[in-house]
Amino acid sequence: MMETKLISSVQNPLVKKILLLKEKSRERKTTGLFVVEGQRELELAQKGGYPLETLLYCPDILDASQIRPFLKNSKAEIVQITKPVYEKMAHRGTTEGVLGIMKAKDHSLEKIHFENKEPLVLVAEAPEKPGNIGALLRTADAAAVDAVLIANPKSDLYNPNIVRSSVGCVFTNQIGMGSTEEIIHFLQKNHIKIYCATLTASKNYVDCDLTGATAIVMGTEDTGLTDIWLKSSDQNLIIPMQGEIDSMNVSVSAAILIFEAKRQRGF
Amino acid sequence: MMETKLISSVQNPLVKKILLLKEKSRERKTTGLFVVEGQRELELAQKGGYPLETLLYCPDILDASQIRPFLKNSKAEIVQITKPVYEKMAHRGTTEGVLGIMKAKDHSLEKIHFENKEPLVLVAEAPEKPGNIGALLRTADAAAVDAVLIANPKSDLYNPNIVRSSVGCVFTNQIGMGSTEEIIHFLQKNHIKIYCATLTASKNYVDCDLTGATAIVMGTEDTGLTDIWLKSSDQNLIIPMQGEIDSMNVSVSAAILIFEAKRQRGF
Repeated sequence: MMETKLISSVQNPLVKKILLLKEKSRERKTTGLFVVEGQRELELAQKGGYPLETLLYCPDILDASQIRPFLKNSKAEIVQITKPVYEKMAHRGTTEGVLGIMKAKDHSLEKIHFENKEPLVLVAEAPEKPGNIGALLRTADAAAVDAVLIANPKSDLYNPNIVRSSVGCVFTNQIGMGSTEEIIHFLQKNHIKIYCATLTASKNYVDCDLTGATAIVMGTEDTGLTDIWLKSSDQNLIIPMQGEIDSMNVSVSAAILIFEAKRQRGF
Repeated sequence: MMETKLISSVQNPLVKKILLLKEKSRERKTTGLFVVEGQRELELAQKGGYPLETLLYCPDILDASQIRPFLKNSKAEIVQITKPVYEKMAHRGTTEGVLGIMKAKDHSLEKIHFENKEPLVLVAEAPEKPGNIGALLRTADAAAVDAVLIANPKSDLYNPNIVRSSVGCVFTNQIGMGSTEEIIHFLQKNHIKIYCATLTASKNYVDCDLTGATAIVMGTEDTGLTDIWLKSSDQNLIIPMQGEIDSMNVSVSAAILIFEAKRQRGF
């Protein structure tokens, strides 16, 4: 184990840096760094290819041997922190005892690579609520979709509420981000059919053949998809609703469509 | 329009009563009353057969003519409130301007009535997060399931966070509540097959015939279903997952199963 330093003051500059990285999207963007909390999440982030820069752990909560797995093939700086310092930075109180500063990935579309010849892609335009983005990423992980593309993103991926609500699926999915125009161009270039989930001129989703190269495109709950998607759509699809209100959560609708594609593909 | 009184003090006993009804489950239980905020929600609650006891509105936000629809066939007391009083009680700031005190319904199982000979029923055991319960109720509304049954409920239905996250679907569904034992007995008595969503001894959900009288039973994300459900299960079903994490949101999983039943039934 490397030499470690100990931080016992909440005024320490590294503590302040971590709080800034958690709170400010701009800080994450300018530094290319973000914070991961919890053993499971750290493990998933490393497995997903995110380099660990700094590992902070609280010896009062967690034994040094428990952090060893995170240091394999890693040149991360290790920092011990006292319990008050940990509690100042952690969301989940005293249960985990470990935090990491990690390097963000490049989510530009040219990095997206498909191993599957008939990829299944989930596209979400301008999703807003971190809880919805987290649920979308959990569904995408469970369905092992080939990529999740976020069009006109409203926030960066490493918002702590997204990391948390995705239970780490933000690290397990191949995620691309870009403008709506860029993503449409990317899909067309890759011969992926565009299925827009929308109310107008739509076919019942179970009558759509989703076995070829397919992108399922979801808009926001409030305003739906922008016109440019609808103009580029190969087929609009709809989930028939028969209730009083006819408004499902966007992550719920996406899951119904994605798993219908999985069913048609025989899982 | 009836004579109305005006409340301009946040210390008024009615204001205090409303705050208590919003905050305290016990207050709702002992009085049999709850609070609904917003025009759309009030409309849905009335349509769902919930009697309006008291209507409070803020003439600075909303015209008296706009509350008239709520007073048809209703002997509700009408109370005008000033903007500061409204803001004290309202969650959504100044957008709506109207609140109602409504009478709760009897959600015991003997009140559940099926018009459909092959009902589709969604059962959730001990769901915890209001957001998940809201999403389940939205899905249930969209699928027009015959009933939603909540086993071993952790909270009452009229928690403001459930009302809000259900976007009013708490009023549009037929909802029954009871212990797990009572609900199993109810389902068996009504010859409704019990399909438990669980990991063990399970069949791929798309290979299950969900066209007969069907109850889809969901446990919590953390601990799944209790043993008594598994012992009473006619068939366990599973959504095959192929990701790293294999954990979908409970409302997402429920929606995939419910809409597979809808697909099999031809909507």
